[in-house]
Amino acid sequence: MITSSSNPKIKLVRQLQSKRREREARQLFVIEGVRLVEEVIRAEAKAALVLHTTDLDARAKTAVDHLARLGAQIETVSPSVMAAASDTETPQGLLAVVPFLNFQIRHLSFVIVLDRLSDPGNLGAILRTADAAGVDAVFLAPSTVDAYNPKVVRAAMGAHVHLPIIEAGWEELAKQLTGLEIWLAEAREGEPYDHVDWRRPCALIIGSEAEGPSDEARRFAPKRVHIPMSGKAESLNAAVATGVFLFEAARQRR
Amino acid sequence: MITSSSNPKIKLVRQLQSKRREREARQLFVIEGVRLVEEVIRAEAKAALVLHTTDLDARAKTAVDHLARLGAQIETVSPSVMAAASDTETPQGLLAVVPFLNFQIRHLSFVIVLDRLSDPGNLGAILRTADAAGVDAVFLAPSTVDAYNPKVVRAAMGAHVHLPIIEAGWEELAKQLTGLEIWLAEAREGEPYDHVDWRRPCALIIGSEAEGPSDEARRFAPKRVHIPMSGKAESLNAAVATGVFLFEAARQRR
Repeated sequence: MITSSSNPKIKLVRQLQSKRREREARQLFVIEGVRLVEEVIRAEAKAALVLHTTDLDARAKTAVDHLARLGAQIETVSPSVMAAASDTETPQGLLAVVPFLNFQIRHLSFVIVLDRLSDPGNLGAILRTADAAGVDAVFLAPSTVDAYNPKVVRAAMGAHVHLPIIEAGWEELAKQLTGLEIWLAEAREGEPYDHVDWRRPCALIIGSEAEGPSDEARRFAPKRVHIPMSGKAESLNAAVATGVFLFEAARQRR
Repeated sequence: MITSSSNPKIKLVRQLQSKRREREARQLFVIEGVRLVEEVIRAEAKAALVLHTTDLDARAKTAVDHLARLGAQIETVSPSVMAAASDTETPQGLLAVVPFLNFQIRHLSFVIVLDRLSDPGNLGAILRTADAAGVDAVFLAPSTVDAYNPKVVRAAMGAHVHLPIIEAGWEELAKQLTGLEIWLAEAREGEPYDHVDWRRPCALIIGSEAEGPSDEARRFAPKRVHIPMSGKAESLNAAVATGVFLFEAARQRR
């Protein structure tokens, strides 16, 4: 059992939790709790390292055994070491270090681009929503919060192992999105979202919560779309707005 | 200028920020920042008390002057007193104590009922969404987080002064919702949400994020509705799901 937070494996986990640079250099990130571990298994992905306390329930034990058979290193840790390794205030007693997945991207027919999204909870909820709505990929334009930030991972509920999540500059996006109709979500300009034909191959750009779309996004996207609002509120939460757009598209595509 | 956190007005604000009991006994709650103060003015509501630091910008000064003309007590406070009175880590230098609004409810044609919602950020985002979608009222069934919790107020972006938000037990709900078609949101049971005729007078019940609807909600609602999901995610964030339902209803009602 690991009982010291200065153990090199624990140090690695702490660095992956706190430093984007470390995550990117090692192409590894951390997931916590049995639900996310089960998503890794369901996605047929692998874990490099699993840490757990001694009080696992049967469901968690099954999941850990599965990852062990696929080659993960398994380490038992003391509760205080788990507290040091965890990003949450009440650790679930189970976490795993997982490699970034490299998805093969063949045909893109429905994608979203996030432009300067800054709130990790919002980004996580958007990834979860995109995963549920069946989008092919999520692109992160410059100045968007890191998708592998632990708060994002927690809110995304497994999207990281189901869905291509790709950082890209605007030039790269121009190449990747060739042939797609590109729509920019605005607060009140452009087409009502339910008048757009989302069955065509398309990309939707969602801008910053506080400041709206960047100048680059405005130059990039010829078409504007908005959600008409009938009440008194002036805007929607970015994740809620994304859900309204994506499920209208999913509804049309069914 | 108030420079001591033991000043009775500051003590009052701190109690209103931290204690549901105090908010309910006094029928008062706290809003922070110029955007929410402007929503109070837009709703033609009043503030009982305004605290601000000396470094207000022109926009905030205009808002404070407006509330002063409507009878609010205005107090200048030191930055450390503002930090003590604020619920946020980076106070905006302006907060107001506002009475609970009593809305006249005449005709209900489209309402939501929240059943054991427990996350303040989710409840706030749902109130903001309901406000934007034009629902007539939001009912809070038993065991739902307090709507006047500062985290809820912050995320709701003014819904508290635009929208009737009503706590009610199931018996009371049965009376209030007489004549409405009652739908319960489920993870995968019942009608697809876009096959429901939301133009009829109706109520939608949204259950707990983690545990789904309560037994009481299941007994209360004869009809079930769900959002078909085409991707790999198993569920949506509660606020995102509410947005998908409410904007489908709003789309049909336009």
